[in-house]
Amino acid sequence: MPDRDAHLRWRELSRRSIASSVIFDVVAAQRVSSNGRAGEFWILDARDWVNVVPVVYGADGSRRVLMVRQYRHGADLITTEFPAGVVEKGEDPAAAAARELREETGHRAGRLTLISDLRPNPAFMTNRCYTFLAEDLVRVSQLSLDELESLEPVELAEADLDARAGRGELVNAMTMVALFAWQRHRPGGLKPST
Amino acid sequence: MPDRDAHLRWRELSRRSIASSVIFDVVAAQRVSSNGRAGEFWILDARDWVNVVPVVYGADGSRRVLMVRQYRHGADLITTEFPAGVVEKGEDPAAAAARELREETGHRAGRLTLISDLRPNPAFMTNRCYTFLAEDLVRVSQLSLDELESLEPVELAEADLDARAGRGELVNAMTMVALFAWQRHRPGGLKPST
Repeated sequence: MPDRDAHLRWRELSRRSIASSVIFDVVAAQRVSSNGRAGEFWILDARDWVNVVPVVYGADGSRRVLMVRQYRHGADLITTEFPAGVVEKGEDPAAAAARELREETGHRAGRLTLISDLRPNPAFMTNRCYTFLAEDLVRVSQLSLDELESLEPVELAEADLDARAGRGELVNAMTMVALFAWQRHRPGGLKPST
Repeated sequence: MPDRDAHLRWRELSRRSIASSVIFDVVAAQRVSSNGRAGEFWILDARDWVNVVPVVYGADGSRRVLMVRQYRHGADLITTEFPAGVVEKGEDPAAAAARELREETGHRAGRLTLISDLRPNPAFMTNRCYTFLAEDLVRVSQLSLDELESLEPVELAEADLDARAGRGELVNAMTMVALFAWQRHRPGGLKPST
């Protein structure tokens, strides 16, 4: 079958490593388009990421989520986010979600459901960002953090999260795509009111 | 006023440049926590990004959006996205939105409204991602693309975009946060149906 998008694609001629860290490598790729244009593109070859939306129920039956409050080195900001992290090499994304949930909240999920699989920024990043809904939670342990992590657990009512999303400490775009996916996944989802 | 989050923050001792490109620099920062832990953190010092949600109206009065279909070098994928790009050094984000809209769709907006201001990934990225709603559009020119850009314009009905978000070519997380912001900004917004 002919590729009707051949005119859009670029072919890689060569690549060289610019720098390597534990969470990403920087690569310079030499590529050529179908009509012969050539260029060098810097690519961030990053590990995949995983978000977890851990849902618990209040005494009145209302839905609440477990979140984490922490200092973030990139933005030099304190943010409130869903538990999240890097999928280790060879690790199954669902296993990574279960691990991050346990490490950052001390809970195990009876049920993990993949609700979103996106590309953080396909323009220059290679990786995916998965979001898992975590239900039937059981507290199993104390937090188990990396030596360099300091987290504060936060529990938020669903309605508060919906209302405050995008402002204050709720500005991590990966937490926002997780919330967006969860809103769409909720029984009945969200419907335009106009 | 005492900083009640002092125990979460880290202080930078020094930094060194690892690599520099036109859209980001990689920096290794030596930092120390309030209780004396020390570590090196790799940070992606990136230009800010801007999304544009360009709204037009069909013959029946229904809302439609202008999007772009293109090859993305990071993910090695063809995606459909809102017009978007990098805010140049010293450029106002709204001016960047107007520029990207003109370059990628050939339209000028009578009205640009900031509807979202997020952090793509505050864990290791320094930058912001702004989203502007673009209304009262007028076609002013042909596309004006960088030498290395190949774009196909796509017009999508609002209902199709809402329904197909997160799947197929609609997997750029930055386009998803723009859509999320736009859904919340629409007259009446979105309301949980359960």
